[in-house]
Formats: sequence, C-alpha cells, structure tokens
Amino acid sequence: MPFPVPADFAGPPSPAHRRAWEDADRAARPARLARLRARFAATGVDAYFGLRREEIRYLTGLVLGEGEEKVAGHSGQFLVSADSVVVLADSRYRLQARREASGARVEEVTYDLAARWPALCASVGARRVAVPAVDISHGLWGELAAAAPGVELVPAGAWVDTDRAVKEPAEIERIAAACAVADRALATLLPEIRPGVTEAALAWSLERHVRELAAEALAFDVAALTGPGAALPHGSPGARRIRAGAVLLFDFGAQVAGYRSDMTRTLFAGEPRAADLAVYELVARAQAAAIDYLTGELAEGRAPNGRAADAAARGVIAAGGHGAHFGHGTGHGIGLATHEVPSLSRGAPETALPSPTVFSVEPGIYLDRRMGVRIEDLVLLDAAAGRVERLTRFPRDVLVVA
Amino acid sequence: MPFPVPADFAGPPSPAHRRAWEDADRAARPARLARLRARFAATGVDAYFGLRREEIRYLTGLVLGEGEEKVAGHSGQFLVSADSVVVLADSRYRLQARREASGARVEEVTYDLAARWPALCASVGARRVAVPAVDISHGLWGELAAAAPGVELVPAGAWVDTDRAVKEPAEIERIAAACAVADRALATLLPEIRPGVTEAALAWSLERHVRELAAEALAFDVAALTGPGAALPHGSPGARRIRAGAVLLFDFGAQVAGYRSDMTRTLFAGEPRAADLAVYELVARAQAAAIDYLTGELAEGRAPNGRAADAAARGVIAAGGHGAHFGHGTGHGIGLATHEVPSLSRGAPETALPSPTVFSVEPGIYLDRRMGVRIEDLVLLDAAAGRVERLTRFPRDVLVVA
Repeated sequence: MPFPVPADFAGPPSPAHRRAWEDADRAARPARLARLRARFAATGVDAYFGLRREEIRYLTGLVLGEGEEKVAGHSGQFLVSADSVVVLADSRYRLQARREASGARVEEVTYDLAARWPALCASVGARRVAVPAVDISHGLWGELAAAAPGVELVPAGAWVDTDRAVKEPAEIERIAAACAVADRALATLLPEIRPGVTEAALAWSLERHVRELAAEALAFDVAALTGPGAALPHGSPGARRIRAGAVLLFDFGAQVAGYRSDMTRTLFAGEPRAADLAVYELVARAQAAAIDYLTGELAEGRAPNGRAADAAARGVIAAGGHGAHFGHGTGHGIGLATHEVPSLSRGAPETALPSPTVFSVEPGIYLDRRMGVRIEDLVLLDAAAGRVERLTRFPRDVLVVA
Repeated sequence: MPFPVPADFAGPPSPAHRRAWEDADRAARPARLARLRARFAATGVDAYFGLRREEIRYLTGLVLGEGEEKVAGHSGQFLVSADSVVVLADSRYRLQARREASGARVEEVTYDLAARWPALCASVGARRVAVPAVDISHGLWGELAAAAPGVELVPAGAWVDTDRAVKEPAEIERIAAACAVADRALATLLPEIRPGVTEAALAWSLERHVRELAAEALAFDVAALTGPGAALPHGSPGARRIRAGAVLLFDFGAQVAGYRSDMTRTLFAGEPRAADLAVYELVARAQAAAIDYLTGELAEGRAPNGRAADAAARGVIAAGGHGAHFGHGTGHGIGLATHEVPSLSRGAPETALPSPTVFSVEPGIYLDRRMGVRIEDLVLLDAAAGRVERLTRFPRDVLVVA
C-alpha cells in the first residue's frame, strides 16, 4: 500500500465555506425551532427551556466552548415559546449573545434565575414549560418549581437530540471537513513515528497538526496508546515508548465550525506479530460487516437499525473467538457533540436509524495487558439517497510505520 | 521595567515533584473521606453519592479529563459509606478505575445504574443517601428514587466544595506550579507580539507554550483579545489583528497534575493612549486594594471575607468613574476546577474566607466597542500563617510590547 500523505485528503475549509455554513445555520434555525415547537401541542406545553451547550448553538446561535457552560452561569440557557426565543446572559456574555443569537431577545440574568423565572415565563405567556430532565440539575428544577408555583415544569424527552440526529447538508459538510482535517493530521504525523517516542509526545504532535490544519479545537483529548496501553479503550497517553512491532492506536477527532469528527486507527510500529495481525484483520472484517449490513438493507429497500448494525460487527468478533474482548458499543452519532443519538449497540432500539445521519462504526478487541485494536470511521447514512459513505478517508489497510 | 523573560519564573515540575504529589493525594484521601463522612450524622444519612469529575478525582483518585464525564456514562460516579468506597466503571474504564481508585471497590455499571441501584445501596448498607442536587440531573434523581423506594435520597449541600476550598500543601504547590507555567508561557510569547498578528495566532501560540512547558491541558480556552475585542470579558480570539497602540488582553491558565491556574494580563502593543493608561492604572489600583484589604485584615487579626474584598476593588473603580463598566465579580476560588468556592463578589457571604485557600483577584473595566482592561492574579490566603501571597509572578507594570 502506498503510504498515506497529507495531500491524499481534502484541504481545510476556506473562509467562504465558513461563511456559507454560518448562513446555512441562520437559514435553518427557524425550521429547527419549528420542529421543536411542533412537539408542544402533543405534550400540552407552551414553552421549552434548554440548557445544553449543543442545543444553545443549534437553536439560538450562541457559541459556548466545550466546558464553558460550567463557568458561564445561566448564560446561553434559553426559553422558546410559540413565537419568541429568550436567551439568558450575564454581563460577560451580553454583547456576544446579542451578536450571535440575533433572532432572540437577550435577558440579563446572573445568579438570580429562580427569582426572575416567574416574570420570564410570564413574558412569553408560558404556564407549562418542557425541560429536558437529563440536562437540568435536580437542584435547579426544584428552585424553579418553587419560584413559580403557577408554572408547571414538564420533563421533556430527547426532543432536540432526536431532531439533531437528522443532519442538514451544511452539518454533514462540516463533519466531513472535520474528518478530512483528522485524516490529514494523521498522515502528517506518520513520519514522526519511530521506536522510542512516547505516547504523550505523539499525542501532542497529532493535536498540533489537527489544530494547525484548521480545527478550532479537538473533538476530545487525543488517545495515543501503544502495546498493552492500547488494551484500555479509554486510556490516556503517557510516558510509554513505542517499541518495535507494537501496535499503536490513535483515537482522536477535530472540531471544524462547531462540528466534530472521531476516528481510530491502529498502526504497527514495525513488523507485526502474526497473532496481532489476526486480531487486526478480525476487527477490520467486523467493521466491514457493520457497513455491509447498512448497505445491504438499503439495497433491499429496508431501513437499517442500530441494534442489527452492532450485531453484524459483534457476530464477526464472536465467531473469531473474541466476543468477550469487545465490551463497548459499535458506534454513536456525532455532530456538535462527540457522542449523540443514534447508538449502534446491543441496547439500541430496533427501529429505523434516523436519516440522513452520521455515526461512528468502531468495533475493537482488547486483550488485557497485551494489546488492543480498534478501527473507527464516521459513516454517513442517507436512506433516501440510498447512500452509505465513509467520511473518514484514511486507509484501513494494515499500516507498518517506523 | 526590564522585559520579563521565561527564566524569571520557576521551571516546570520534575518527575519527582509529580510522584510526591501523587503520594500526597493518596495519603490525604482518607482524611478527605473522613471529612465527608463526618457530615453524615448531622444529616442522618449513611452514604454519599458523588458525580462531579473534581470530586471523583479528589475522593477516589480516578482521573477523568475535562468534559470526559459527558462520554463516560456512569464511570467514575461513586458511593461513599461509613466504611467503604464504591466506584462505578463501564468496561472502558474498569482497568483504569482499579489502578487509580486503588482504595475503592470497582463495580461494573454500564447504562443500568437504576436497575443496579438497590443492590449497590444494600451492598454498603445505605438507606439514606446524600446526593448533591446541583450535580445530579433531575432525570437520574427520579430514576434512582423510583428504582429503590427503600432508599431515601437526601439533597446534599456543597459539602465537598466546602472541603475542597481549603487547600492542602500539595494542592497549593500544584496551583503555584500551574501559575509558573503560565507566567513562563506568556514571557515566551512576548517576542512574537507585533502589529498585524491575529488574536487567534497569538492564542494558539500561547497555548502551545503552555502545553509544551509542562501542562497536561489548558485550564480553559485562551482568550487573546485586542482593542475593542477586549471589551468582551469572555470573548473568543478571532481574526482581529493587533494594531499599534491597542490593548492586548490575555486570559489563560495551565493545568499541572490536575490543578489549574488562571491569570490575565493586559499589554499595550505600542505606546498607549493616555486615556487607556488611566484605565489600566485604575484597574491596577483596584486589584491592589483588594489584596491590601486581605493583608490588612490579617494584620489586624481579623478574618477577611469575600464580599468586602470585592467591595475594596469595586470601590476604587467606582471612585474612578467606571463603576458601571465592571460587571463581574472580583474573584473565584480555583483548584481542580477553574471556578470554585470561595467567591469574591457582591453576593459573596460576609463570613470568613476559608484558609488556606487560593482564589483569583481580577477586577476589570470594559468600554463597549473601545477597549477593556483586566488584571488577574491568583492569591494564596493563609490566615493561620498571616500570609497573603500572589502565586502569579508575572509583573503587573504597564508593559509596552511590539
């Protein structure tokens, strides 16, 4: 196989791309709000109170960084009624909220949300407010309920999660752009891999390549794990050095204009042992089996589901004798967050996967104290277009580096 | 003033320091757990269920990265009874939990916490479990309450927050080390600042210096804001270029062995305008006034409080005619999280600040569409030792760069 090089993959997005994505978001926001509001009648609510950073960006336009919501107080939290959107912001976020959440009324709220809650609800005529129970703390729920006895709080289901699982064209473009940044970054890293280099040094170098190519952030901390370290599905890179013949697992992603990618490649630092190669090939076959399942269902005019996709990959690994060494699910949706609906797993529903949607397909085999292999691509599923497409383009062939 | 250079500040911690800190944490954990358990009797509970990543590390030793808790499921969540600690981990975290949370029993729990809850509580003899209501979602609270009607959930106050506000010597050492990394990183950046460079380029370069010096992570995204951009107290660095004479505000921090720093410096890219200089000097005097208040109280044998410390800084700014341009609080505690107890603000309690503790002192003045100035140091307050010490050592004098 020819060694992958950066130019094999799409270049970073241009400023024109970025402007087009911003325009697309602005244009899509009324329809996103309309989908949310369409749920009001069946639940008998007249407003929705959102708190999660992904929903804040998706529905109002205000951008908070990962973890920023922890120090932002109530800034970004929002109330949607039938005809208006109110975004909360303390003095630090007021100007930003006015600029980014241009369709919303910005209300200055610092620590006093409970005290302000009755008037806020009254200002939009809300008497029954849906609140996602997984996003609001038990403490705040209690405070709001006590502050406005005339306003009923109603636990909302995963409404916006469900809506966000169906991706707009400009969302798919950004995920694909984030995939290309990650592909390029890994290709850029390859010549730096040699025995003796530490996991931590490779992780940092890969992070630099990702960030310097185009990404405003990583999707999550880079995992660069070698040898027995790769047996930890969520291990952290450390002082362990690359040894000849060892596996070297990279799990990482980029964030481009808010949207994330996630990929894993397991390389070999020098000639692989036959046993390790056999594990690699089993994982590769399992990954292909999940994708073949998706393609096959579409070809037959059927809607694929996440439980069967997982079973397709898991069956290959179990048949290869490693069923006990694949503990996690086969995949997860991705977008503004790294882990989203839908799920490809043993516990996933047998109902049709959303479409168009993007998710990871990432089976793995982990041998305690020995090694681990995972291969992960993002896959676009577009049932209406009959399309199953890997957005991750980095080759999956056995790659011997160093 | 001599231009600060990297060698002015302490070098990065050695591996021996890091080992000593790990040992100190391990040695301190029983006392930390004892402080938590000492609260059980007064509340009539026999266990505590913790969910926040900082508490997970502080009380069990398991390390989750910033935001990792969002994708870790229940991994890391823990139950403390009078005589045992149980840490939950799914298959991805099992080995890590066993190694890092060495004093705990690790229970494998994936998505089925509610189903497992009755048996988990029974296994430690818990019938009344304290749960911090700000950390648990309303949804999970409801699921656990329904799953085990025989186990009462009791909202816990900010118990561990209060305990964590009092810093151990090895915690203070790590915050000081993170301060020194940030000081050095900014000194390393100075020669790169020149007209025409963008905020985003400087932010990324500063981040690289922080990370390459010793930090495993940033404490939060770097703010590098110039001119009118600096008027946004929580703005994000963008394409704006440094112009001669403009202010240039850096707000950033490092994370070293889990502990964080936070500093802000406002520099001038070329000769400052007299009006900007006057704003700078007012902010510097406000910051000094807050620190003088702390020192003065200790000298008089009194315990300083966070409301009066805020008032000391705010009074100077108000007297200078800029009261309306300082909207945020004067300071916040810091440690495993960037924002912790105690608070120095208008709403802070008038009770004695904890001691020893570390907090920021960071007054600012923000002139919409014109400029902003903030000066922020971390300060160690040790009342018993009569000590108020800036841990941030980067000079606060007017610094004209480029």
